[in-house]
Amino acid sequence: MTARKDCIARDAQDPLAPLRAHFALPGGVIYLDGNSLGAAPVAAMARARQVIAEEWAQGLIRSWNTAGWFGMPKRLGDRIAPLIGAAEGEVVVTDSTSVNLFKALAAALHVQASRAHDARRVIVTERSNFPTDVYIAQGLAAWMARGYSVRLVDSAAELSGAIDGDTAVVLLTHVNYRTGYQHDMARISAHARAQGALTVWDLAHSAGAVPLAVNADGADFAVGCTYKYLNGGPGAPAFIWVPRRHQAGFTQPLSGWWGHAAPFAMAPGFAPADGIGRALCGTQPMVSLAMVECGLDVFALTTMAAVRAKSLALTDLFIELVETRCAGHRLELVTPREHARRGSQVSFTHPHGYAVMAALIARGVVGDYREPSIMRFGFTPLYSSFADVWDAVEILKQILDRRDYDPAAERAAVT
Amino acid sequence: MTARKDCIARDAQDPLAPLRAHFALPGGVIYLDGNSLGAAPVAAMARARQVIAEEWAQGLIRSWNTAGWFGMPKRLGDRIAPLIGAAEGEVVVTDSTSVNLFKALAAALHVQASRAHDARRVIVTERSNFPTDVYIAQGLAAWMARGYSVRLVDSAAELSGAIDGDTAVVLLTHVNYRTGYQHDMARISAHARAQGALTVWDLAHSAGAVPLAVNADGADFAVGCTYKYLNGGPGAPAFIWVPRRHQAGFTQPLSGWWGHAAPFAMAPGFAPADGIGRALCGTQPMVSLAMVECGLDVFALTTMAAVRAKSLALTDLFIELVETRCAGHRLELVTPREHARRGSQVSFTHPHGYAVMAALIARGVVGDYREPSIMRFGFTPLYSSFADVWDAVEILKQILDRRDYDPAAERAAVT
Repeated sequence: MTARKDCIARDAQDPLAPLRAHFALPGGVIYLDGNSLGAAPVAAMARARQVIAEEWAQGLIRSWNTAGWFGMPKRLGDRIAPLIGAAEGEVVVTDSTSVNLFKALAAALHVQASRAHDARRVIVTERSNFPTDVYIAQGLAAWMARGYSVRLVDSAAELSGAIDGDTAVVLLTHVNYRTGYQHDMARISAHARAQGALTVWDLAHSAGAVPLAVNADGADFAVGCTYKYLNGGPGAPAFIWVPRRHQAGFTQPLSGWWGHAAPFAMAPGFAPADGIGRALCGTQPMVSLAMVECGLDVFALTTMAAVRAKSLALTDLFIELVETRCAGHRLELVTPREHARRGSQVSFTHPHGYAVMAALIARGVVGDYREPSIMRFGFTPLYSSFADVWDAVEILKQILDRRDYDPAAERAAVT
Repeated sequence: MTARKDCIARDAQDPLAPLRAHFALPGGVIYLDGNSLGAAPVAAMARARQVIAEEWAQGLIRSWNTAGWFGMPKRLGDRIAPLIGAAEGEVVVTDSTSVNLFKALAAALHVQASRAHDARRVIVTERSNFPTDVYIAQGLAAWMARGYSVRLVDSAAELSGAIDGDTAVVLLTHVNYRTGYQHDMARISAHARAQGALTVWDLAHSAGAVPLAVNADGADFAVGCTYKYLNGGPGAPAFIWVPRRHQAGFTQPLSGWWGHAAPFAMAPGFAPADGIGRALCGTQPMVSLAMVECGLDVFALTTMAAVRAKSLALTDLFIELVETRCAGHRLELVTPREHARRGSQVSFTHPHGYAVMAALIARGVVGDYREPSIMRFGFTPLYSSFADVWDAVEILKQILDRRDYDPAAERAAVT
């Protein structure tokens, strides 16, 4: 069985270990919640200072041009593109994931309607999808009326059968936020296409966590989050991917001035920009946006293959140690053991999952909790170590062995 | 005629003069573009450091609760409310102005449809409105199909006649971004209501610039910008106002999880939050959002009546000095002389407006240019002085007297 000294030895040989120094992590904390909010890159503070004290305070209005503020959504998008298997000019960083989901879904429905597939009026998604994905689909479908609806599928196994001749769009989160289950993007996209449906992928728990190949896998549209595995900062703007082949037909109702072909012509009619620019809408929050680059700078020091190799090693180790050292404590693994179906988190249920997680957090092991009964542990290879895994399990074991948690603990909102 | 020493004397007596010290302004610049991007409050850097280095880097995921991140859109909204004549619980700071316009327009159309006024399918606005307002209205109308359309009115004088039995919504920017013309909110809202139409007001050039009374004036919905007169930072999130009487009926398709009654119940069906919370959609950029408070803190040191009195004094002085000292130079005032119809900017046309503005900026007088031929000068009473006005006109006079500008200057994008 793996011992702590084995973990130390693995850290010593880990090629990604030096990247931890690029993050400002608090002392006394084992941070296993990078799947919810990524850690702060050391460089973020200096970047913010540059934007605030120099570009804003000194450059003032001139910085829209001189500091490259206008171009930032595209420039950052081009840096995310290689992490998800997209091409240059196919990604912008802008707005929230929810707003980008709305754009992508609306555009996909528009493509279907313009293909004279207007009879297709169903958005297929999973009941277990992250709520905002479902809500946005419901909001859009209700708004369009005319028979548009959302079909909620109860399990991944039922998904294929649920995609049929009525299906306009299949909306899936690639890695499930609760279970860490990873869909087969290539297989599902091919199946949807064969059925005449388009796919919209939410990469919130995938970008920066697992290798992605949106173009090669035949996905149609995607959105994603920069503040989880990409370490862009709390609530940092999200991204949207529109492949070259769909850009000319990309039409959606959030037609704000940043998506216009010539925003400063101030013409009284909307004409969409060529290319990915038409996925923009309004003015973006520059300080939060600029810091996204600091997280991406760390990814530039490694490869997604290296990140994935370490992610699987960390999650394999965590599963092994929990199942051996905490055996008999009613923990049940809900994350797939199969590597191809696993994201970069491990979730266990426990009858007192909320209370146990609260006890862990109080002892400095910061994971989080999701209804029902799920304790989530995110592993972020850029700054999680093998020793972290050992120490987290040791503390979990102590809490469970000593029943050192309060089953009556109040639930508080955690994201 | 006013002399420079008179301006110095007025500054010495100006009760708002001490507020200038709350802003980090560059040396050698007379900043007259706060109507486009407000200056940086001195406190902004420290606030950003707190959010980044403490709340994010040290607090990590816990800061959503412990640092009050979740509550920030409402907390900041409650601080903007008194500046616009709204009540507590009626404003949130979130998303971009464009996205909020979409929500407000969609909700207004929904109210009309639910009143069985579904025959009303026209959004009335001005051709001279800020482009994103027109584009968002066009995007929404096109998306709804079923005969919805946008009617562009060519002048404020034609507005009343254009509001008729087909009109669902009147969408107006309260102070025009080019001319500085201020609409009569009370009169137009009353007229629209008498015709059965609802009003959506864009306060981008009004909030923090002129006194507002959205509730007393009978407006129905409003949106606004925090990065102009409110000094919230480049691209900082915008705000949306939904009065108490419209909140229960506020329905729009951007139904993201932050607008849900219980976001962390993770239920697979959207149920809107009670109150203003339903105007939220997705996760907000916390660093950019937090700095909005620094701008609002300065407003807390004065009153909008005091701001308005100084604004009118500054703009009156600027008009007087330009028209006397730069007489014969083909400058034409396009901003109303009448106080009630004027915002906090002054615009002059000049046949070489772009070139003259470029020359001014090169000499440190930072205003901006808008097609066609319009030079804009924004006056922000929190940090603009009477001496600034004199010095800006002196430099303008020198440039014009000496023809010290290049009529062939290239136009560059400025916001």
